[in-house]
Amino acid sequence: MKIKDLRIHSIAIADPPIRSSYGLHARYALRTIIELESEDGIIGINETYGGESPVAALKAVREKIIGKDAFRITGLLNPEMKRPDTNPDRSQTWLVPGENPLDESSRTFAAIEVACLDLIGKSIGVPVCDLIGGRVRDKVPFSAYPFYKHAGGGGEGNDAREDEYGEALTPESLVKQVKKMIATYGFGSVKFKAGVLEPDLEIETVKLMYQEFGPNVPLRIDPNSAWTVATSVKVGKALALELSGGGYLEDPTVGIEGMGAVRKQLLDIGINVPLASNVAVTSFGDIPAAVANDAVQIILCDHHYWGGMRQVQHLAKLAQTFNIGLSMHSNSHLGVSLMAMAHVAAATPHLTYACDTHYPWQSAKDEVVAGGRIPIKDGCVTITDKPGLGVELDYDQLERGKERYRHCAYRKRDDEAEMKRYVDPNWKRILPRW
Amino acid sequence: MKIKDLRIHSIAIADPPIRSSYGLHARYALRTIIELESEDGIIGINETYGGESPVAALKAVREKIIGKDAFRITGLLNPEMKRPDTNPDRSQTWLVPGENPLDESSRTFAAIEVACLDLIGKSIGVPVCDLIGGRVRDKVPFSAYPFYKHAGGGGEGNDAREDEYGEALTPESLVKQVKKMIATYGFGSVKFKAGVLEPDLEIETVKLMYQEFGPNVPLRIDPNSAWTVATSVKVGKALALELSGGGYLEDPTVGIEGMGAVRKQLLDIGINVPLASNVAVTSFGDIPAAVANDAVQIILCDHHYWGGMRQVQHLAKLAQTFNIGLSMHSNSHLGVSLMAMAHVAAATPHLTYACDTHYPWQSAKDEVVAGGRIPIKDGCVTITDKPGLGVELDYDQLERGKERYRHCAYRKRDDEAEMKRYVDPNWKRILPRW
Repeated sequence: MKIKDLRIHSIAIADPPIRSSYGLHARYALRTIIELESEDGIIGINETYGGESPVAALKAVREKIIGKDAFRITGLLNPEMKRPDTNPDRSQTWLVPGENPLDESSRTFAAIEVACLDLIGKSIGVPVCDLIGGRVRDKVPFSAYPFYKHAGGGGEGNDAREDEYGEALTPESLVKQVKKMIATYGFGSVKFKAGVLEPDLEIETVKLMYQEFGPNVPLRIDPNSAWTVATSVKVGKALALELSGGGYLEDPTVGIEGMGAVRKQLLDIGINVPLASNVAVTSFGDIPAAVANDAVQIILCDHHYWGGMRQVQHLAKLAQTFNIGLSMHSNSHLGVSLMAMAHVAAATPHLTYACDTHYPWQSAKDEVVAGGRIPIKDGCVTITDKPGLGVELDYDQLERGKERYRHCAYRKRDDEAEMKRYVDPNWKRILPRW
Repeated sequence: MKIKDLRIHSIAIADPPIRSSYGLHARYALRTIIELESEDGIIGINETYGGESPVAALKAVREKIIGKDAFRITGLLNPEMKRPDTNPDRSQTWLVPGENPLDESSRTFAAIEVACLDLIGKSIGVPVCDLIGGRVRDKVPFSAYPFYKHAGGGGEGNDAREDEYGEALTPESLVKQVKKMIATYGFGSVKFKAGVLEPDLEIETVKLMYQEFGPNVPLRIDPNSAWTVATSVKVGKALALELSGGGYLEDPTVGIEGMGAVRKQLLDIGINVPLASNVAVTSFGDIPAAVANDAVQIILCDHHYWGGMRQVQHLAKLAQTFNIGLSMHSNSHLGVSLMAMAHVAAATPHLTYACDTHYPWQSAKDEVVAGGRIPIKDGCVTITDKPGLGVELDYDQLERGKERYRHCAYRKRDDEAEMKRYVDPNWKRILPRW
């Protein structure tokens, strides 16, 4: 199954002005859609980070791919053969996913791997999850992912999207947002992006959610390292009840040592709220120290930057071995990424928590998947018998995404710059802020 | 690709009277050959442990397999979904591989997984290594595997095989054995099965090998837990030079704590000979304690009991993450197992040592692979472009193996019983012996 062509499409998709400790999401998120075409004209697709740097990295591997066998490309490109993927300090504390130069080989490898798997699956009529080990579930659970946000649905000017969720900068409005998400998608758990308001207000937000949804909807809070160790412990203590029963405290503070200190101090006062991470732990190189410090009880995997689907499966087994839970991280994305996440999750026995997804924040107007948005029902994406990732591209929609990219003023994600532009010209990312 | 039939063939293959701390190899080793036939008549094959218990376990999964899709069988059968594969204490200290009841689900899963991969590969024209991630090498290195042995080439009576290597119960005769193996197969490293003679004689054996082959042929010594911690340290000290430069000290003593003590005491006297294991560490459940105790610097994987090819790939990534080397364990086997070992090794970036193999001890007369024995050249098995495992069955040879099995008096491996029968009626396995 020889590869004839690799096509790289830069697109921009509308993204609402949601907040995190990194700053503000820009009006458009940048994504890259790739197509890998075989000699017999079958096309494998994938979606990855957008902007100049990911595209440059993909272009750089182009010549290694053309003319090669899709089954062997991942062996050929394997970054582990050049450099062990155990480089520590690949933290996302200061860099957003997709913009960390130390992740580049893993991200590029992942982008090509998934496109190859889609191509192979479509060529032989097999779903990707079954290619990589066989599905152990065919409904993949995702969480509601509420954010504090400003008014606006993303996009700009004539291209502005409807503001489906409205402004949400108070505990009450955030709960309202979650109710709407649950009503629409049937999510059974909530991952709440914090690190934006005063910790007391964020505590209040979680308490309100718990009142509203009760103990059967696990709650997670993720301030992206915004807090000191002391504040993290204070929040953990205040929310011991609300985060129990399948919830967790995610990346409360900076770094593995800080996380280890939070864990220890919470255990010392009898509070066993698990700590999750996709900031302190973002690569295999971070794991030995995380294990030694008991810093992380749940890892949020992400095939986009951990090096692809098979690396996520390796990570899951490693996590199971060390009694660490596994969930899944997400960035703003379309349906191709959602299906890739769902397929790897379907073929990963040790997936112990519902996955994150930004998908509810994106609009049907931006979806490049033929037939429109992927349904999320009862909080789950269903894996069907369709080959590959189970989706094809809508080339008209792809063209619109490329057009938006051409008109977009920036070529990388910069949440701090957006905060300065739209909210506060003096805003700076300060860690810990509280 | 629906499965129409699962056929299970018990065979016996001649095995020379080689020695280890477990006792004596019987005149015949028991193996099982399985065939998985798809509805369109393509046949996937595999080889696994022999005798009653492995066959009973395979028969027990038969009904879960027939009528199912080969791509989904491994998801359906995945033992991790029933019971986390992190059960500690799956040590092979007292049980030979294939006879440990705690390994059963992993062994059975592995046997079916590899047969599925061969079937899939043969159906779509793709080598197994490329199905599971893509080859990162196409020559897989193996080690010479000398044993102390009694006279005899295996088999019995009219069915006795030629004694190619002769008796070897002294340091000099063992070196002669290695010379012959290297001359025949071109091996570039030596794994020496010890734990049989007095430790001083085994030290002398390694020193003679080092004199003969020099520092460019890495030497390993494996007494299968026969020594006390003190003896292990004494041997490590005596052989510090000979085991350096790519060699190792394998399972010198019993258990993870014992191994950790040997490691610490050796480091304390400035000797950094790495410890390897396939006795103290035989499952994912053993790894956290092994890491915490720095008990093992190299794990010898084996897809036959670690749960298949993908589990070996998971293990390799875990080992890389924790800076642990990876080699490969072997039992008496034919060409199907050899090719399975070679394929998973080819698709495992973090394979840091040449693999073990008993293959030189088996005879062409017993080989069930069509076309005869797999060539080992310059110490390597070559992965070709042939689909699946790259080998087919010779059904006449298979029939002869089944006939030998029918005439064989035993239905499980019992090296202690063989020692009593042929060498010393009062022999008992004692650990530590020295």
